[in-house]
Amino acid sequence: MSPIDVPLLVVGGGIGGMSAALSLARAGHRVHLIEQAAEFAEVGAGLQLAPNATRALDRLGVLEPVLRRAVQPSLLQMLDAVDGEEISALDVGEAFVARYHAPYVVLHRHDLLSALLDACRAEEGIELETNRHVISCGVEPDRVTITCADGTVYRAGAVIGADGLRSRLRGLVSDDEPLATGYVAYRGPVPVDRVAGAIRMDAVVVWIGPGLHLVQYPLRHGQLLNQVAVFRSDRYEPHSDDWGSPEELRARFSTMCPAVAASVELLDQSMRWPMHDRQPIGNWTCGPVTLLGDAAHPMLQYLAQGACQALEDAVELGEQFVPGRDPEEAFRAYQAARIPRTGRVQASARAWGELWHLDGVARDVRNRYLRARRADDFVDIDWLYGADALSAVTASGS
Amino acid sequence: MSPIDVPLLVVGGGIGGMSAALSLARAGHRVHLIEQAAEFAEVGAGLQLAPNATRALDRLGVLEPVLRRAVQPSLLQMLDAVDGEEISALDVGEAFVARYHAPYVVLHRHDLLSALLDACRAEEGIELETNRHVISCGVEPDRVTITCADGTVYRAGAVIGADGLRSRLRGLVSDDEPLATGYVAYRGPVPVDRVAGAIRMDAVVVWIGPGLHLVQYPLRHGQLLNQVAVFRSDRYEPHSDDWGSPEELRARFSTMCPAVAASVELLDQSMRWPMHDRQPIGNWTCGPVTLLGDAAHPMLQYLAQGACQALEDAVELGEQFVPGRDPEEAFRAYQAARIPRTGRVQASARAWGELWHLDGVARDVRNRYLRARRADDFVDIDWLYGADALSAVTASGS
Repeated sequence: MSPIDVPLLVVGGGIGGMSAALSLARAGHRVHLIEQAAEFAEVGAGLQLAPNATRALDRLGVLEPVLRRAVQPSLLQMLDAVDGEEISALDVGEAFVARYHAPYVVLHRHDLLSALLDACRAEEGIELETNRHVISCGVEPDRVTITCADGTVYRAGAVIGADGLRSRLRGLVSDDEPLATGYVAYRGPVPVDRVAGAIRMDAVVVWIGPGLHLVQYPLRHGQLLNQVAVFRSDRYEPHSDDWGSPEELRARFSTMCPAVAASVELLDQSMRWPMHDRQPIGNWTCGPVTLLGDAAHPMLQYLAQGACQALEDAVELGEQFVPGRDPEEAFRAYQAARIPRTGRVQASARAWGELWHLDGVARDVRNRYLRARRADDFVDIDWLYGADALSAVTASGS
Repeated sequence: MSPIDVPLLVVGGGIGGMSAALSLARAGHRVHLIEQAAEFAEVGAGLQLAPNATRALDRLGVLEPVLRRAVQPSLLQMLDAVDGEEISALDVGEAFVARYHAPYVVLHRHDLLSALLDACRAEEGIELETNRHVISCGVEPDRVTITCADGTVYRAGAVIGADGLRSRLRGLVSDDEPLATGYVAYRGPVPVDRVAGAIRMDAVVVWIGPGLHLVQYPLRHGQLLNQVAVFRSDRYEPHSDDWGSPEELRARFSTMCPAVAASVELLDQSMRWPMHDRQPIGNWTCGPVTLLGDAAHPMLQYLAQGACQALEDAVELGEQFVPGRDPEEAFRAYQAARIPRTGRVQASARAWGELWHLDGVARDVRNRYLRARRADDFVDIDWLYGADALSAVTASGS
């Protein structure tokens, strides 16, 4: 086959790639997006979108369809998984929405991807292709050759690698590998009527305990309860899948308070999700190729910011990639804005997870400290959710 | 040699044994005290006496000579050994003294023992002997036979084992062993004029860091600075002395803030003190034999309560051992009052040490939590220093 010439190629049709395509198209570019799977689909479960993400969706013109499918909680609640006592709460109601000019919502991953896909399909400038598994990438100063497993070859003016945690394009700028944490997740939504006991349908609830946690929130107008159970396996070994089994899951959670112990019985235990991230890197760009989303900055899920940061990336990319500007120059400006902020989020997510999983006297002092905070004290989260977060990060450093 | 008949025998001439002898004599008993060393002497360094201990000394009639030799600080200060920043402070000035009806003082261990020794020698009812190393102990319902290495045999109506961490008499009630912690201490006073840099002469200062800490306070009217440097050795192995070396000490403290790093250069590095405690036990009494001080409840030093609890033991023992009462009955009443409280202090000392030695995000949250406390907030320490601590403990449980 002869090469297909495309001005701008996005590799990866997940939340990051789709929103990048949308952002670039809205900025006046023709975009070609390729996805390795046969269909555009998000596996898994629910997703949290903090105000920094809902503001980005607004900029991309897809907030309205997202809100139609989302649940807007009034509270983020943290409880101790051992004794069941509340540790802290963050009021994400009116005052929160007013402060951050956007709501905190939760929805099914599939619903977010559908909204993005619908918007991409409605854009004349976007072409979407599935079944394109990238196997090699050749970079020259003003063009990139991308070869797929099915023989398709693209000759692109510039490429955005939105190909996830195990990004192939990341190899152009770094030889690092995903870092295993020894933690594994089991997740999925369950019909609400199968859940015994009282459930808050107005809250995102996280139960935190020694080396484990459980997140619960409603989806689809409260018909589903999304659950994510995460624990550190005592049997973790590198380069093995023989750890973090459903038996371990049940054994670990069985010692927690009754509400938490009962929750894992309902979880889908057929899929285990080992948790990874990577260290922040100082450069995402190689000539006219750059990275976006998990390919650029995979992070642990403790701040629920993986998709949110990809959406921020997409908005920034669209702003920097003005027509006529040299792609490499645009990518350099994009990464200059994004690397400090995403690095801080990666590091903070790790620290936040460490805090959740403390044991012994450290757990006790954490609970005392967090209990002293007020539900309307937003100062500590302004850096993350704040409206000027993008511009503020460069000034504040870390 | 024919056995020496004594009504009451105290085994051990340290702070616990000496104060027990004094308390029993003041209660109207004739007391025989034996010590294995050739002289009554306390090795080591300084000692902190919290109000619960100075009140006990007052009851024993030796507070006045102790205060003459002690320094009375106005502040207990806690700093972060890594960055040198203050974490918290407790004002132990007038309001503290008024609340607890006694002062917080520091002095040389030798000076406290001297004051107790002088008081014992001034008591007609007390006989003191050195060079008596106990090698066996035979218990019958109404008498105890104690045999020493030099052939001396005592036939006692009752025995108080104040023979320290490695108590021989504890073997009558428990087969437990001292628990090594992997921590080692280096300690000793240094002349103040050898110390470079500013020193607070009105404070007990503790620098806390990941797996280590340093305590500093003035002794002898401010002529000496007492120092205790403690760290967890990475090379710890059970049943070995080949860990916690001076080289490790210097290497570990060299990464701390300059004031802390410099301090260890002045420390006497010829003696290492591995740190031990034991689990609390539920019975100290076997017939007419009971335990007191470290023999009964050895504890980690993090609350500086080892000597303080021995002094409390002595006062309680004197109160329960009324003339004419059956010794075993008196000992049962004594341990009923003392075991819950000393068990709580042992457990709290461990937890307090764990808190001091936190690293990472746990260290950060600890500092934030402790910084929020006021210097005159005494509520958390009432249980330990409070005037009704002895009677309150039984009610409060743990």
